[in-house]
Amino acid sequence: MTYKKKLKEVVKAVKSNLITGLDTDLLKIPACFLKYKNPVLAFNKKIIEATIDNCAGYKLNLAFYEAAGKKGLEALEGTLDYIPSNRITICDAKRGDIGNTAELYARAYLDNMNFDAITLSPYMGYDSVSPFLERKDKFVYILVRTSNKGADDFQNLKTGGKKLFEVVAEKSLKWSKDRIGFVIGANHAKEIRKYSSKNIPLLIPGIGAQGHDTEELKKNLKGSLHLINASRAIIYAGGRNDKENEVAEQVSTACKKINLELIR
Amino acid sequence: MTYKKKLKEVVKAVKSNLITGLDTDLLKIPACFLKYKNPVLAFNKKIIEATIDNCAGYKLNLAFYEAAGKKGLEALEGTLDYIPSNRITICDAKRGDIGNTAELYARAYLDNMNFDAITLSPYMGYDSVSPFLERKDKFVYILVRTSNKGADDFQNLKTGGKKLFEVVAEKSLKWSKDRIGFVIGANHAKEIRKYSSKNIPLLIPGIGAQGHDTEELKKNLKGSLHLINASRAIIYAGGRNDKENEVAEQVSTACKKINLELIR
Repeated sequence: MTYKKKLKEVVKAVKSNLITGLDTDLLKIPACFLKYKNPVLAFNKKIIEATIDNCAGYKLNLAFYEAAGKKGLEALEGTLDYIPSNRITICDAKRGDIGNTAELYARAYLDNMNFDAITLSPYMGYDSVSPFLERKDKFVYILVRTSNKGADDFQNLKTGGKKLFEVVAEKSLKWSKDRIGFVIGANHAKEIRKYSSKNIPLLIPGIGAQGHDTEELKKNLKGSLHLINASRAIIYAGGRNDKENEVAEQVSTACKKINLELIR
Repeated sequence: MTYKKKLKEVVKAVKSNLITGLDTDLLKIPACFLKYKNPVLAFNKKIIEATIDNCAGYKLNLAFYEAAGKKGLEALEGTLDYIPSNRITICDAKRGDIGNTAELYARAYLDNMNFDAITLSPYMGYDSVSPFLERKDKFVYILVRTSNKGADDFQNLKTGGKKLFEVVAEKSLKWSKDRIGFVIGANHAKEIRKYSSKNIPLLIPGIGAQGHDTEELKKNLKGSLHLINASRAIIYAGGRNDKENEVAEQVSTACKKINLELIR
């Protein structure tokens, strides 16, 4: 099944465009999980159980797992194994390298780990993306307009009457008709309106802990191919609560609440 | 000791600006290494022994290790442990993410793994780079002008009378006076001349298997702060030879030859 088809089906079945960001930091999880052999993995499993009914899938930012070395890799692989195949999995890798190296990243994350989709940085151009596009049924989200402060340093530069991020968006759509979408931060209302109305799958970070308003975001969203990510606002909803089941309940409530805000 | 000081001392002591790229692919190493528990690690150790006298250090592209999962991480860590501290180690990661995530990548590669330097992608701007700059004695090579085909897709776009990569170069130098250098492909003679004459540390891929001419490159290099990377042309110099010691000799000869061509 193509990614777009899976995306449509999952969004419809779960009634959710929400992606839970499993950006799990060992230093921030409740102490009750520290008794497990792999606390991050144990925590992630609990989070998945608590959120599975109210989100379309999960985004794992690799930095959080790489910072934890071997245990991190175990947690990453174990978490992926635990996510049922009827949910979307996104590898937030933001990679970008020459062709023969990009092929290896594609092997690592789309083949070996079997993520549905991956985020990539556009700076090195076509051959840094093309190996990922060769994977049938997989999908690439190109960093177009990011949610962070530094986004304006280069993305907003004018070139030939357009902005750099617009050139990135237009050019990358030429690389593939069906397997490319964009990462657009929730704070970029105009761009969300523009690209979602063209039915381009968007991956939208920036609500929740990053602070952007969901009501404003919703006004600008057209179609149903978007995924909106929240990480810290969901996974740390239990705060320092130290009872597993209560943590699970608080996480479940937070996820349900954010999802309702998004679909209402 | 600052990175620049270490760089100068190593280049002087070894009489080499050559970096050996340990981009080791299990499928390409001679069969005689397959008997080891971790063939890539065993191969890398042999390569390090064979090249240590003729190169200033080693660049490890993470893709090659990530594609091999747990064994890859073992090989990465074991290889780093095996490189003596009087050589430069560069983490070819090309990462770029929002501030709190960039901090985790910095923790992973500059703190935990203790690489001397890391390559980063500029697309997300200042806060995707700043956590790395906070590490005293560490160093960042920003992707400015890459050696691949797709490099022209965006890097060469004109913006305000300059090219995008020039804006990236100028702006990133403002982020740090001492801890930023550039990645410039060996095929970009003019840029190598321009930035090396300003005494900016350059990391230059593109000779060897990527095919660019060392004689032309040398004409354009000013100063001594540059590092020139060769990967496949050194590490696979043994071809399919299946005797460890002969492989080591062939690799050693190739490394010495490339280094002589660069310093002659």
